[in-house]
Amino acid sequence: MSATRYDVIGIGNAIVDVLSHSDDDFLARQKMPKGSMSLIDEKRAEAIYNAMGPVIECSGGSAANTIVGVAMLGGKAAFIGKVKDDELGHTFARDIRASGVAYTTPLATEGPSTARCYILVTPDGQRTMNTYLGAAQDLSPGDISSDEIRSAKVLYLEGYLWDPKQAKEAFVKAAGIAHESGRTVALTLSDAFCVDRYRKEFLLLIRNKTVDLLFANEAELKSLYETGDFDAAVEALRKDAGIAVVTRSEKGAMVVTKDTIDAVPAFPVERVVDTTGAGDLFAAGFLYGFANDMPHTNSLKLGALCAAEIISHIGARPAKNLRDLASESGLLK
Amino acid sequence: MSATRYDVIGIGNAIVDVLSHSDDDFLARQKMPKGSMSLIDEKRAEAIYNAMGPVIECSGGSAANTIVGVAMLGGKAAFIGKVKDDELGHTFARDIRASGVAYTTPLATEGPSTARCYILVTPDGQRTMNTYLGAAQDLSPGDISSDEIRSAKVLYLEGYLWDPKQAKEAFVKAAGIAHESGRTVALTLSDAFCVDRYRKEFLLLIRNKTVDLLFANEAELKSLYETGDFDAAVEALRKDAGIAVVTRSEKGAMVVTKDTIDAVPAFPVERVVDTTGAGDLFAAGFLYGFANDMPHTNSLKLGALCAAEIISHIGARPAKNLRDLASESGLLK
Repeated sequence: MSATRYDVIGIGNAIVDVLSHSDDDFLARQKMPKGSMSLIDEKRAEAIYNAMGPVIECSGGSAANTIVGVAMLGGKAAFIGKVKDDELGHTFARDIRASGVAYTTPLATEGPSTARCYILVTPDGQRTMNTYLGAAQDLSPGDISSDEIRSAKVLYLEGYLWDPKQAKEAFVKAAGIAHESGRTVALTLSDAFCVDRYRKEFLLLIRNKTVDLLFANEAELKSLYETGDFDAAVEALRKDAGIAVVTRSEKGAMVVTKDTIDAVPAFPVERVVDTTGAGDLFAAGFLYGFANDMPHTNSLKLGALCAAEIISHIGARPAKNLRDLASESGLLK
Repeated sequence: MSATRYDVIGIGNAIVDVLSHSDDDFLARQKMPKGSMSLIDEKRAEAIYNAMGPVIECSGGSAANTIVGVAMLGGKAAFIGKVKDDELGHTFARDIRASGVAYTTPLATEGPSTARCYILVTPDGQRTMNTYLGAAQDLSPGDISSDEIRSAKVLYLEGYLWDPKQAKEAFVKAAGIAHESGRTVALTLSDAFCVDRYRKEFLLLIRNKTVDLLFANEAELKSLYETGDFDAAVEALRKDAGIAVVTRSEKGAMVVTKDTIDAVPAFPVERVVDTTGAGDLFAAGFLYGFANDMPHTNSLKLGALCAAEIISHIGARPAKNLRDLASESGLLK
């Protein structure tokens, strides 16, 4: 294998989050399935925005959050995703670079505006997301730099990329380049509803080894195998996947391979404020460990630590220095 | 007195906050006096923005935060302040209306962009602010609606209004209209550095009874009377002011008149996350009680409750329903 410049390169929808504190009644009135991510058009985006309470805006995007986490742990990281040349697009680009991530995807100069995710945070800390994909839809194979993909030990992709039409082609192109250079291709299933939309395709990606390392939470895994039985889903997964990381919120997380299962408990949290980004930051911790050849159990612990940080405050970008936290916990030097 | 439509109407700088987690080293490198509010020009704004870490954006502005708090306690409230017809301006306008506040100030169609405050939050929860006044500078006497001012029991003004040139005239005009209709005029001293810039003028406003109700924290009060002795400052204040509310962070707060002093302790807080808006929300609670003829001690307690809510999370707009919190605490029905 040739030398690498990055630990991880991520490809995902480049999104700015618009968060508001809300309650279950609001979700019911707006017919939003609690805890889900729904795709919305511009008209619906406007209606939701007008109905929401006061908002907080901050950069988001699932894979983007993960890549920022990798960089904040001290990893070398890059991101590919599309924003427009507008105010929110500039915010997104500045934020991800301010976190130490290499980000060079050209800004769209025409077409829809930068993607936004309207997130309702309920008092129990759960988040319900409504995504207007906007400019993120215009990510295309032309935005994939072969040189950059080859330069990363791990290519990390989000399942949400299956939603914008051309992004899927970008995804497949990048996976091909990564494998040609002997790199690892990782995928997160993103969301149970997303799995429901693309179950067959995701299963094919896993079974034909386009994906080497899979991230899923309990709901996504059950959705993938259309079963309510967690243990049955794990058994099915062991047959299909190379390495799979399964997160179970307060029940902890595990790494599953054909022959082994390693599990760790969740990291204690004083108060769950906002679960936005929990899975994204868990993936960040695990990927940092994985790319740096740490034992799976330690990578899981690093994931649990990062997830605990992100759910203790609002927003999906870390508020504390993750490297310092990891050092204090003895997980990194 | 004629009938009123509002409990409180506020006039202030209409600002969007841009917050970032930071540390003391960053403040030292940027030569920012910790805990202060500094005025900056566009060039400096750009330099700070480029140097800051990932940001969270949310509507702010001292008097605007207060007025939102009054509305969220169930009070009828209105706000006057200037933004531009740009993206941040629309965010500000939407947010304040989403909180139930009447806001009808015309948007500026030319001139500088909507005001921004770059806020660095250190791990101790302290905030250090850098304000680019932008469009807020264009608030002028023409924006003051006599009808609206007359319609509110209390007119609430922020000391920061002394910074933009024409806003001062708007302030004086509004105070005149309020007094003609027998309303109460309230002023917050805003910031010790602001007091230092306008000490003589503020003392004159208090002594000539342009201001009936004064809000100050310990540092502002000491700055006003140029003394390090808190008790001496309070004694001086009792001679000058009609009614004065003095906040002392974790030492609680008091109402001071010529003849009486009422004090309450601070409301317990699990963890101070971000002190941005503590004074603003204390004023909100007190003003709600004051406008609804509650005893001073109860108004102080309501102020302490609102301040405790705001410092337990990031941003200066309440994350919880203040009315519900006040009901749970037995302060409101």
